Amino acid sequence: MINKKLLDYNDGEEMDIVVMLKDAQLRPSRNGKQYLMLYFSDSSGVIRGNYWNASASDAELFKVGSLVEVNGRREEYQDHPQIRIYSMRLVGPEEGYDMSEFVNSAPIPVSDLKNEINQKVDQIANPNWKRVVKYLLHKFERQFFSFPAGKSNHHAVKNGLAFHTATMLKDAEAIANNYPQVNRELLYAGCILHDMGKVYEMTGPVATKYTAEGNLIGHLVLIDEEIVLAADELNIDAHSEDILLLRHMVISHHGLPEYGAARRPATLEAELLHKIDDLDATVYAITNALQHTVPGEFSEMVRSKDNRRFYRPKHDNNLDNFKKLE
Amino acid sequence: MINKKLLDYNDGEEMDIVVMLKDAQLRPSRNGKQYLMLYFSDSSGVIRGNYWNASASDAELFKVGSLVEVNGRREEYQDHPQIRIYSMRLVGPEEGYDMSEFVNSAPIPVSDLKNEINQKVDQIANPNWKRVVKYLLHKFERQFFSFPAGKSNHHAVKNGLAFHTATMLKDAEAIANNYPQVNRELLYAGCILHDMGKVYEMTGPVATKYTAEGNLIGHLVLIDEEIVLAADELNIDAHSEDILLLRHMVISHHGLPEYGAARRPATLEAELLHKIDDLDATVYAITNALQHTVPGEFSEMVRSKDNRRFYRPKHDNNLDNFKKLE
Amino acid sequence: MINKKLLDYNDGEEMDIVVMLKDAQLRPSRNGKQYLMLYFSDSSGVIRGNYWNASASDAELFKVGSLVEVNGRREEYQDHPQIRIYSMRLVGPEEGYDMSEFVNSAPIPVSDLKNEINQKVDQIANPNWKRVVKYLLHKFERQFFSFPAGKSNHHAVKNGLAFHTATMLKDAEAIANNYPQVNRELLYAGCILHDMGKVYEMTGPVATKYTAEGNLIGHLVLIDEEIVLAADELNIDAHSEDILLLRHMVISHHGLPEYGAARRPATLEAELLHKIDDLDATVYAITNALQHTVPGEFSEMVRSKDNRRFYRPKHDNNLDNFKKLE
Amino acid sequence: MINKKLLDYNDGEEMDIVVMLKDAQLRPSRNGKQYLMLYFSDSSGVIRGNYWNASASDAELFKVGSLVEVNGRREEYQDHPQIRIYSMRLVGPEEGYDMSEFVNSAPIPVSDLKNEINQKVDQIANPNWKRVVKYLLHKFERQFFSFPAGKSNHHAVKNGLAFHTATMLKDAEAIANNYPQVNRELLYAGCILHDMGKVYEMTGPVATKYTAEGNLIGHLVLIDEEIVLAADELNIDAHSEDILLLRHMVISHHGLPEYGAARRPATLEAELLHKIDDLDATVYAITNALQHTVPGEFSEMVRSKDNRRFYRPKHDNNLDNFKKLE
Amino acid sequence: MINKKLLDYNDGEEMDIVVMLKDAQLRPSRNGKQYLMLYFSDSSGVIRGNYWNASASDAELFKVGSLVEVNGRREEYQDHPQIRIYSMRLVGPEEGYDMSEFVNSAPIPVSDLKNEINQKVDQIANPNWKRVVKYLLHKFERQFFSFPAGKSNHHAVKNGLAFHTATMLKDAEAIANNYPQVNRELLYAGCILHDMGKVYEMTGPVATKYTAEGNLIGHLVLIDEEIVLAADELNIDAHSEDILLLRHMVISHHGLPEYGAARRPATLEAELLHKIDDLDATVYAITNALQHTVPGEFSEMVRSKDNRRFYRPKHDNNLDNFKKLE
Amino acid sequence: MINKKLLDYNDGEEMDIVVMLKDAQLRPSRNGKQYLMLYFSDSSGVIRGNYWNASASDAELFKVGSLVEVNGRREEYQDHPQIRIYSMRLVGPEEGYDMSEFVNSAPIPVSDLKNEINQKVDQIANPNWKRVVKYLLHKFERQFFSFPAGKSNHHAVKNGLAFHTATMLKDAEAIANNYPQVNRELLYAGCILHDMGKVYEMTGPVATKYTAEGNLIGHLVLIDEEIVLAADELNIDAHSEDILLLRHMVISHHGLPEYGAARRPATLEAELLHKIDDLDATVYAITNALQHTVPGEFSEMVRSKDNRRFYRPKHDNNLDNFKKLE
Repeated sequence: MINKKLLDYNDGEEMDIVVMLKDAQLRPSRNGKQYLMLYFSDSSGVIRGNYWNASASDAELFKVGSLVEVNGRREEYQDHPQIRIYSMRLVGPEEGYDMSEFVNSAPIPVSDLKNEINQKVDQIANPNWKRVVKYLLHKFERQFFSFPAGKSNHHAVKNGLAFHTATMLKDAEAIANNYPQVNRELLYAGCILHDMGKVYEMTGPVATKYTAEGNLIGHLVLIDEEIVLAADELNIDAHSEDILLLRHMVISHHGLPEYGAARRPATLEAELLHKIDDLDATVYAITNALQHTVPGEFSEMVRSKDNRRFYRPKHDNNLDNFKKLE
Repeated sequence: MINKKLLDYNDGEEMDIVVMLKDAQLRPSRNGKQYLMLYFSDSSGVIRGNYWNASASDAELFKVGSLVEVNGRREEYQDHPQIRIYSMRLVGPEEGYDMSEFVNSAPIPVSDLKNEINQKVDQIANPNWKRVVKYLLHKFERQFFSFPAGKSNHHAVKNGLAFHTATMLKDAEAIANNYPQVNRELLYAGCILHDMGKVYEMTGPVATKYTAEGNLIGHLVLIDEEIVLAADELNIDAHSEDILLLRHMVISHHGLPEYGAARRPATLEAELLHKIDDLDATVYAITNALQHTVPGEFSEMVRSKDNRRFYRPKHDNNLDNFKKLE
Repeated sequence: MINKKLLDYNDGEEMDIVVMLKDAQLRPSRNGKQYLMLYFSDSSGVIRGNYWNASASDAELFKVGSLVEVNGRREEYQDHPQIRIYSMRLVGPEEGYDMSEFVNSAPIPVSDLKNEINQKVDQIANPNWKRVVKYLLHKFERQFFSFPAGKSNHHAVKNGLAFHTATMLKDAEAIANNYPQVNRELLYAGCILHDMGKVYEMTGPVATKYTAEGNLIGHLVLIDEEIVLAADELNIDAHSEDILLLRHMVISHHGLPEYGAARRPATLEAELLHKIDDLDATVYAITNALQHTVPGEFSEMVRSKDNRRFYRPKHDNNLDNFKKLE
Repeated sequence: MINKKLLDYNDGEEMDIVVMLKDAQLRPSRNGKQYLMLYFSDSSGVIRGNYWNASASDAELFKVGSLVEVNGRREEYQDHPQIRIYSMRLVGPEEGYDMSEFVNSAPIPVSDLKNEINQKVDQIANPNWKRVVKYLLHKFERQFFSFPAGKSNHHAVKNGLAFHTATMLKDAEAIANNYPQVNRELLYAGCILHDMGKVYEMTGPVATKYTAEGNLIGHLVLIDEEIVLAADELNIDAHSEDILLLRHMVISHHGLPEYGAARRPATLEAELLHKIDDLDATVYAITNALQHTVPGEFSEMVRSKDNRRFYRPKHDNNLDNFKKLE
Repeated sequence: MINKKLLDYNDGEEMDIVVMLKDAQLRPSRNGKQYLMLYFSDSSGVIRGNYWNASASDAELFKVGSLVEVNGRREEYQDHPQIRIYSMRLVGPEEGYDMSEFVNSAPIPVSDLKNEINQKVDQIANPNWKRVVKYLLHKFERQFFSFPAGKSNHHAVKNGLAFHTATMLKDAEAIANNYPQVNRELLYAGCILHDMGKVYEMTGPVATKYTAEGNLIGHLVLIDEEIVLAADELNIDAHSEDILLLRHMVISHHGLPEYGAARRPATLEAELLHKIDDLDATVYAITNALQHTVPGEFSEMVRSKDNRRFYRPKHDNNLDNFKKLE
Repeated sequence: MINKKLLDYNDGEEMDIVVMLKDAQLRPSRNGKQYLMLYFSDSSGVIRGNYWNASASDAELFKVGSLVEVNGRREEYQDHPQIRIYSMRLVGPEEGYDMSEFVNSAPIPVSDLKNEINQKVDQIANPNWKRVVKYLLHKFERQFFSFPAGKSNHHAVKNGLAFHTATMLKDAEAIANNYPQVNRELLYAGCILHDMGKVYEMTGPVATKYTAEGNLIGHLVLIDEEIVLAADELNIDAHSEDILLLRHMVISHHGLPEYGAARRPATLEAELLHKIDDLDATVYAITNALQHTVPGEFSEMVRSKDNRRFYRPKHDNNLDNFKKLE
């Protein structure tokens, strides 16, 4: 069957498949030789495999982000699937594969995400917030609607950034409905912009890495700078209270300095932006961990949740019926 | 005007009014005498006043929770109102006042709170959770629908416990709508029970204090014990997964051990219960602080939020139009 | 010699012996195959060994807690003994071995431990404490007098739980003698009950694991629940001060929330219970570490003591003459 | 003598002097009245005094930053000097006093500070750094050469910001001389800009307060925004490595997130900027504390140094001969 | 009655009595005058009193540690006794009072403490430890058998240092009996020396203060230096293992660096010394707090126990019958 | 070429060279055999290599600190050079090699370091400080001028201790020039002595290990003891303020208790000693890390700097031209 995906193979089954190298590291083996530790991926997920007796030129050839055709067999090691590689060759650009088909994507189409976000933009009546949000959404449209929200912790999939943003907007709407004292427009503006600095912080949706600028400045300050430049461009006073409140939201949205907040939240809406961000990331990370856990057992340690393990109940229809995240 | 309330008087106005003593402490003054530092309250709010040259018998007479008739004048000290007391007398039970009229209450009637909570109980289909929740709601009905949720941090008003619970259930519903993988029934059961142990932890809605049992055990373990006893009474196996999941939720709902959690949350629903509890307490505490803050200024330090100060924007219709909490 | 035990063999000696698998994990080897990392044990102690080129069916066969006959040779790797395995076969139940002979036990016979504990129970005059303690000692007698006190940190041997309890009672007696203000009866009751919840928290003395209930509730709250149920059964008011003091002791005996205490100790006896527990666990852990250390050197890192290393003096008769713990 | 300054009076001496109100707070006194707690200042320093039985109109009249003529007597309270006020009147602008003469200033003239800083600017050869530094020095010249470096911790005097900057440049020069691997130009640029955001963070040299913008954004991000705007204005790519290194320095110069750093220093020069800033602030704070301490005793607690107390040796010529800081 | 002591007077009773000033601080009162806040003491305990309208010469006269004759009346302020002072005069040395009768002492006579400690010295067979211990006991005999163990936290009474030491030796004996692997001689030597550096750290049993040397070096290092000097004097190699083990014990006995330990304990005996020290200080502090608490209530916050409050049970014969500590 | 050094070989080049074993550990390999993990060193630096199929007698033969002749080939593994060993033999003392030629040394000759340090000693006019410093410099001269300053964190090279000291003296001079209130003589004395206790703490410049005395006491207290003994020997009162200030400096120079300070710095000079120590160690560690980093990339994690990674700019002449440290 021509369209069989990476995770469609069973244990012990032979496979010949074109996949992407999500990770590739040259390592010494105990016999004095070297091997490549590889992570293969396509839109169905990720599997590991070792390429033994790798030469220096192999390491040059098989780089992160390139496509390869793998011939091998799926096996189980320590409860995790691996591919025992028989042979492997580089797939060249002339073979016409679409790179984006080999990357795991958010479970909602980009067009839907754009619609949901734009509907919320329309509900922002304040002209200063609306103009800045629209300006930046337009400036970074291509990256914002393709980047993941992170390398590994949560929403680490193509379009993950927009998926995370759209879900947060739904949470923001619900909370503003339950607590009428909340400034709904400001909260929406904050949700849309809060992680947009990641378009500078990461390299893109494929073989994602952090940039030097990302490491040295961080996405909170990176988007704050963009708000100031946008205001300058749009002839809005960056020191007006409207823009000040927005700048405060983005630089404080990680909540605590030790998690990267340049300031702790000091308005009701900044505190809520932080809590909504945390809520969505948490639900995603726990759900993802439980989806890889046998019912009645505890998950692997979840790094972004203080290395806690989470218990998957023996029977839980809601969880069982939920779509697979990663 | 016969029905003028404590907070209806203006600065400098003379007053003669029956109020309750919310707090009363004998303190030494610098002239070698003593005075009573008093907090007066009725359903409109709280004002402070000092009763100078107090004797030991005055301290015996004017105790926390008793009613007094105060004759005096409202004045401003350091931006806070005080009553300069001309004279004060104890109001006896024979005068027929209803104590509950002198206590600040939640802004929603008890009957509405009961309705909202009972509607959620009806949506719990799982018989084990439903029976335990109904059993305990019935066992503690009187206290649960009159106690505050705390002495000072948040929802420190009559019916505050049920008000806090009902609002959390609305948040839980919204979150379960946004994340279908969540077990809605378990989350509702956890919300209803999580703070119910406070009926042992505190003395009641008037002149609230913590009990010895509250200090030595804490409301998390106190309600866990009640769940186990209820299961025993209802012939439900307390070690079944259903009851285990519920016990875990209540003992972990403070999130971190240093905030009183006997265990950190280890299920998706336990983590969400903690986050919803924190969300509702946070919104209440910040709103309450901002309602006592001049627009364009920072609030007093909010103790339950790490002593942070929160900024009240110069113009914010949502906040301006919102009902007064305390 | 027919009764030669696992630790009686010398370096380089061939061995053919029946032992228990205390641990067994399938791991990948660098040649693309797999091996089983095994820990063999009998009443003399524990030795490690690797079973190379293990198949999936080998992993099914050789499980934690099963008996095997090993043919091999003792060797030294990095200062630790290992068994180089020539062959290994499963020993079936029909061969009539007594499992408990292959588990390391506390150095004091169970009958002695029972006597020591019962003598202390007799010294509890208060009827409420005495009845609850006797009821629970009887309810959990089988497990209480066979379980270890933990998986690895201290007293991780058969009967370790009762051994730990009995030693703590001796410490409690000495401290009550030195400080007459201490309520000796309450302290004894607390010592006996404090870790009894471990009968729910762990799976038993062989191949010990933590249960889901242990992870989700913890042995402090688990025994607190049992005290409440026992009081209910015995018609003692669980909210009386006697039972309240006992409940407080068990839920606070880990001292700090971050170590699992639901409350910090708030009575003299609760504080002492915590200190005695810590004292006995500490002496055991350090002694055990030093017994595996060369005189004049530092021990391995002791995990339960903040990963500190402890120095074994060059000459120390007391330590040299002391019985081997594990 | 006409020019006698505030600190020139001896204990017990009568005084009639024009001074500025550095602080003024209305407080209740125990007799049911109010008083103004005042801090008087001129260029010689600060003394406290209480204005008893203050009316609301007194509080309106005697505000922070206004000039008053005080008639009174210097006295000692608890080892600290105070002024017992006989009478006090407001000094109007028509009386022609120069406000800046009543504020404590840095011990080095502004013209010298400008010279020292400009000499270092001249040594920056890199055109990108030089242009940005010159642009911002010019844009904020008036405030930069009059503001203090803080409200209380260190350099809390007029021109303190430039004094702190100039001293740090001398330290930077010495360190670059001792460690030739350091990029001297980058370090100088970082020193000059690091605290310049304080021109937005504080209200000015007289009666200094933090602004809302200062509290919500902080001077680290405030100057980072200005660097980005300056680069935009000067047609320098803000994402070039030169500007990136400079942005990183300013947002990381507080070292640790809990002290306000948006990023921890991640270049040699960023780490050195942080250390030099800390060094100069520390020497200032300790010296200032010791100058108010009797030889052979410990100082008051120094708040910015973890509330430590510092010991002033019985004989120390270097310290004894050093100019008074505040 | 001629021998009536300070604490023998009842509330409201007039008194004329010679007492010592345990503390005396000049403070401003709100009426622009000053008063002396005094703590009076004799062997029965301590009571507070304020001396109003104090002049500078009063403050000179009534200094900490001097004897005064007070004429006044005992009154209750906020549940604490105070003396309302009618008149007060200094008692001169010519009146022949014995200062030591006005200081609270440990409840065991010094001669008994000496006996108990010397008996333990006799049980140290190791000549190096014995000689050093005897040398230092002799060198500091006068101070060691009169100093308190601290200013306020625990054993803050005359002879408190020796009382604390003697009780710890009893605990050490009990623990060495229960755990035969412990080196009893080393533990005894460590107990005797561990706090002996306090003879340099504090000024003495009357009006105790910390010395500059105490603040700059600390009693742990101070006694370590003395051990090295003693070994030098006695021609024992300070780098021998015997002396090394002893030095390690004293510099590590506070357990954690943040509590003053120069090293964390790294031998079994060093760890035990720390635990015994902590045990004795804890029992003392809690007992002392409970002795000032009404049954059925919580104590004041105990500063040395993380500001915890401790509960005094309603009925507890052991505690009720125990001798008063302070 | 006879004098080719270890790091002079290129990737793939055959080598036959005499080097020292800086580290040697016997480890199990996955094929059931063992290998020796070796680190070879000479004055040019360090390279790793594995000696496969090592026997127990090989491990006896090839010990840390011995010289070997290695025949093999240089190869690259994971961006790090290794030696593939063909054969290896022990080089005996009779072959006449000078051990010190195989150890990496500080980049400044010992004679220069001695000069620099002695010049500073000459500037100490205070006779007490001068005599103690000279006495101890003489007593430990041999070790002080050959030991490294540590095993790995910084200045982990031969003569590293004196190199670190001499550089700190230059920093101290610069700071004393910028801040005339500093007691320059005391600061110099502190710099020279602060790490001198390392001569007891470590085993020496070759195959450096920590001694038991180092682990149990620590170099801060070790040099404090020496100061006290020196004063005793020189008839200087160890309790005089001069010696007290010096003792305080050495025991506090790590700044924080958790980093080993027995006291936090409490004089201006003690605080500066700590800062200068930290400055020099920091510059060394970052420079060393960056020298092993490709321009435009982040370094490995630097353990002594909280595991931070540091960025090496793409172009930085100062760093590029700086001498190699390790």
